[in-house]
Amino acid sequence: MTRIAFIGLGIMGSPMAVHLHRAGNAVVGFNRTPAKAQPLVAAGGTAAGSIAEAVADADVVAVMVPDTPDVVEVLTGDDGVLAHARPGTLVIDFSTIRPDVTADLAMRATAAGLRMLDAPVSGGQAGAQNATLSIMVGGAAEDVQAAMAVLGAVGRTIVHVGPAGAGQTVKAANQLIVAGHIALLAEAVIFLEAYGVDTAAAVEVLGGGLAGSAVLNQKARKMLDRSFEPGFRIDLHHKDLGILATAAREAGVVTPLGAAVGQLMAAARAGGDGALDHSGLLRTIERLSGRAT
Amino acid sequence: MTRIAFIGLGIMGSPMAVHLHRAGNAVVGFNRTPAKAQPLVAAGGTAAGSIAEAVADADVVAVMVPDTPDVVEVLTGDDGVLAHARPGTLVIDFSTIRPDVTADLAMRATAAGLRMLDAPVSGGQAGAQNATLSIMVGGAAEDVQAAMAVLGAVGRTIVHVGPAGAGQTVKAANQLIVAGHIALLAEAVIFLEAYGVDTAAAVEVLGGGLAGSAVLNQKARKMLDRSFEPGFRIDLHHKDLGILATAAREAGVVTPLGAAVGQLMAAARAGGDGALDHSGLLRTIERLSGRAT
Amino acid sequence: MTRIAFIGLGIMGSPMAVHLHRAGNAVVGFNRTPAKAQPLVAAGGTAAGSIAEAVADADVVAVMVPDTPDVVEVLTGDDGVLAHARPGTLVIDFSTIRPDVTADLAMRATAAGLRMLDAPVSGGQAGAQNATLSIMVGGAAEDVQAAMAVLGAVGRTIVHVGPAGAGQTVKAANQLIVAGHIALLAEAVIFLEAYGVDTAAAVEVLGGGLAGSAVLNQKARKMLDRSFEPGFRIDLHHKDLGILATAAREAGVVTPLGAAVGQLMAAARAGGDGALDHSGLLRTIERLSGRAT
Amino acid sequence: MTRIAFIGLGIMGSPMAVHLHRAGNAVVGFNRTPAKAQPLVAAGGTAAGSIAEAVADADVVAVMVPDTPDVVEVLTGDDGVLAHARPGTLVIDFSTIRPDVTADLAMRATAAGLRMLDAPVSGGQAGAQNATLSIMVGGAAEDVQAAMAVLGAVGRTIVHVGPAGAGQTVKAANQLIVAGHIALLAEAVIFLEAYGVDTAAAVEVLGGGLAGSAVLNQKARKMLDRSFEPGFRIDLHHKDLGILATAAREAGVVTPLGAAVGQLMAAARAGGDGALDHSGLLRTIERLSGRAT
Repeated sequence: MTRIAFIGLGIMGSPMAVHLHRAGNAVVGFNRTPAKAQPLVAAGGTAAGSIAEAVADADVVAVMVPDTPDVVEVLTGDDGVLAHARPGTLVIDFSTIRPDVTADLAMRATAAGLRMLDAPVSGGQAGAQNATLSIMVGGAAEDVQAAMAVLGAVGRTIVHVGPAGAGQTVKAANQLIVAGHIALLAEAVIFLEAYGVDTAAAVEVLGGGLAGSAVLNQKARKMLDRSFEPGFRIDLHHKDLGILATAAREAGVVTPLGAAVGQLMAAARAGGDGALDHSGLLRTIERLSGRAT
Repeated sequence: MTRIAFIGLGIMGSPMAVHLHRAGNAVVGFNRTPAKAQPLVAAGGTAAGSIAEAVADADVVAVMVPDTPDVVEVLTGDDGVLAHARPGTLVIDFSTIRPDVTADLAMRATAAGLRMLDAPVSGGQAGAQNATLSIMVGGAAEDVQAAMAVLGAVGRTIVHVGPAGAGQTVKAANQLIVAGHIALLAEAVIFLEAYGVDTAAAVEVLGGGLAGSAVLNQKARKMLDRSFEPGFRIDLHHKDLGILATAAREAGVVTPLGAAVGQLMAAARAGGDGALDHSGLLRTIERLSGRAT
Repeated sequence: MTRIAFIGLGIMGSPMAVHLHRAGNAVVGFNRTPAKAQPLVAAGGTAAGSIAEAVADADVVAVMVPDTPDVVEVLTGDDGVLAHARPGTLVIDFSTIRPDVTADLAMRATAAGLRMLDAPVSGGQAGAQNATLSIMVGGAAEDVQAAMAVLGAVGRTIVHVGPAGAGQTVKAANQLIVAGHIALLAEAVIFLEAYGVDTAAAVEVLGGGLAGSAVLNQKARKMLDRSFEPGFRIDLHHKDLGILATAAREAGVVTPLGAAVGQLMAAARAGGDGALDHSGLLRTIERLSGRAT
Repeated sequence: MTRIAFIGLGIMGSPMAVHLHRAGNAVVGFNRTPAKAQPLVAAGGTAAGSIAEAVADADVVAVMVPDTPDVVEVLTGDDGVLAHARPGTLVIDFSTIRPDVTADLAMRATAAGLRMLDAPVSGGQAGAQNATLSIMVGGAAEDVQAAMAVLGAVGRTIVHVGPAGAGQTVKAANQLIVAGHIALLAEAVIFLEAYGVDTAAAVEVLGGGLAGSAVLNQKARKMLDRSFEPGFRIDLHHKDLGILATAAREAGVVTPLGAAVGQLMAAARAGGDGALDHSGLLRTIERLSGRAT
């Protein structure tokens, strides 16, 4: 039985921790807002009062928090993982953060005697609840091997993409593609509505050909219904596109569509839609086209 | 047994005509370059020497030619369908052309006693060869009904999306989405290569999550291998994005990603890649990023 | 004394016709809305009841109407210039229209025994009122020479830029630059406002360096005051950017900023600002940034 | 006689230091590459061997170095200004750096008993050589007043735009506008060349109307001649657009043209043109349009 500390029990982390517990592991969860540990405790897991307490006896520490500074704090703070985990502990960071910071944290974890993987996920809330996440893993091959049982309990497609930081790099690419797919679908929907086309029929036929995508399958209905409860929030996707922009800039890679969708996501947020599902980007195209009601 | 005249036996039209013949119809084909009728004749069909000859006894006239002026000529020329088809003939235009011209042609066909559908397809050469095309159909419901046997012999997803012209409108949206998906995948691939990530592994994991798409499934390997034999040519996709841009402009719909990918497709063509598969848009991103070899 | 027929007495044409009359020419004006001839008549000119009547005795026919179809109608309609002007008459089209149509009309004018120049202007309402327009002239050198007295009565910078159509090509470039300068200034103003900078002081210092421009000199104050009475309307600039987009597309020229500003101008129009001065593009940036009040 | 330490004697700083010396000040210069102090020494100034030595007796410390980390090092390093300048010294930073870092450095300078202004400049090498720079000044009003004699010796338009950091904010807006003007002019030039227009004549007439700008006056000839010796290098402008992008993002301001020109500048750099004058952005448009030779 593997002892797992799970730090960050939000919309994604909570169901992931529950899945890990149900898979036969002993999961100790920690969240800054203690009430969020409720689902894990209801499933038979344990809630800790501090990160130090959660990680003290852990074989594996899983982290799922919103942004780069959160991961830095969880790992390197006074109450953090590096200060309190036992030597040899395997740290798996599921968060989506800056690749350069990830690489730096992996070095510091190694220096502290720990092993670390970056393992950001794709698939959203539904993927977390159904344990069907795609997981892009960066780190040493033997550590990935050691983590497979844990990763397999929360994900369906698990791929080792390179050394420390590579998982975050692939996740940045993932967020570029997903944001772009949402924006293109939104432009298409508003275009079809403007021409009075039967959009539900159109979505069906678009989905059957080369325009088909997971975004179309999962988000088109939300767009047609103007139903944008999150899901994955625009605020977070905006953050992720900032990571992508910086990383592309540093590598000298030109991303014209990435830049265009970055502006749209910024406009969505500036327009007050930051707390909506990212499919709510439709509202920005709708406003730009003078079709908001 | 339905008598079908098939005008335009190119990379798409030729396998479609063969499928229609094999489905038990009597197909008479016509192509400006007569040699292209060879596959249809080999399959048991007939080659005509003119459009007039091809359509004279037809119940159904299918058209699959490259661009708007070609359809206009095929339908309204001296040797054209409107002048020579019998009253009541059902004309199915599979070509991708301007929605406003389609609507106008449909009115003229009606005035000439014919019935007309716009039925542009998605799925490319592979879809034509495997009879798995997605077909977006505009026209009168009873004409769509009458055409279902014909459409079903070449396509898998067949959807009636609205009145005359609606098929072309949906096709324009399809081409927007597909071009955008290709550009985003190209940006992602070059970004991942710049960071030395295992791109084959990355494509696998991206395809398993919300970034998954038919474009990723069908085009990522071509991009990683830099293997861009068409397939659907950049020249044609450039033409289609022009149709989209004009139609969006006329409807007052703002399409920032459509505009960005339109510029990229124009750059691909200007850069000499017009005859490549549209996945060859990768080469434009590669050049922009100073990574062409 | 040169006899000049002036067709189109709107916001631009009316003061131009008055300047021509005051310069010692005999000007006969025509406008579809006859009341618009009032300023010319008040200045001593004459109003005609038809184009045929206006051009019957003219040495020079000046045209200043809004869009491509208007010029086509004025020149080639039953009541048009080609049908009624005397052989050898010099036609000067000041309108901003499609370069390809201009070249075609010039050929038809020549075939009708007339001489034709395209002479679109820059400088707006103020330039028309003060006779300080910049005029970009396309046509034969001897015809430009013959027109210099007329052109000099309404403009300050008059340059022969090439054969028939070249004036319109340069005007399209002019409209690209002006639209882009307005958009950039708008982005800068909203950015500075967001940071609480003294924008009036900022505009002063920006204007003194490499960021200085005629747009900054003439439009910054309107932006700071949110005072957008036309001037040159967004609807017209939107039309002109459509001409530019088509011409660039046909020549295979990639214009990423042209495409971006084209989307913004379309959004301004879709957002209900089409009748504002083009500096009102600021409102689109303001809305996009969530700063509209 | 004011004693001025001038840190950073490059392409901009060297002529500025000479102007200050000629204006009757005692200038002590420092540069990491000592040979660059030669023009100042030839003009009668002094070269110091360290920053500490340069600032020890200074009334005013002027700084003109390339990037944010350089200013941080010059001010806060062991050999830096904060450690060695006398209390009350007025520090004037002419460099173009991140506004947030500037604001932070100003606080640290104040804590060290110094007074600090951010005073980035526009006008380029020519402006430095001719003492005609535009200077956008952020800081306390009394410090700006105290600095006017110094600023007036190197600039022509000197404007106090707000508190500490405001100068950098305005400079970021300046760099947005200038980059955009260059890109638009480049698109226009390539467009006109594609149509065979007389570009020299076109530039003349464009400059006379609403499309006129300092960029057109100073850079069009370089573009027509394909003569791109710096001047202000693409590498530096790329850096500045990164500052703009980050600052706009943090303020929630949407800058579609800023994003588009940022991609072009990145492409110019990735394409190997980083050491050219920023007008060399034309080469990127030329390559995109398939017109490079």
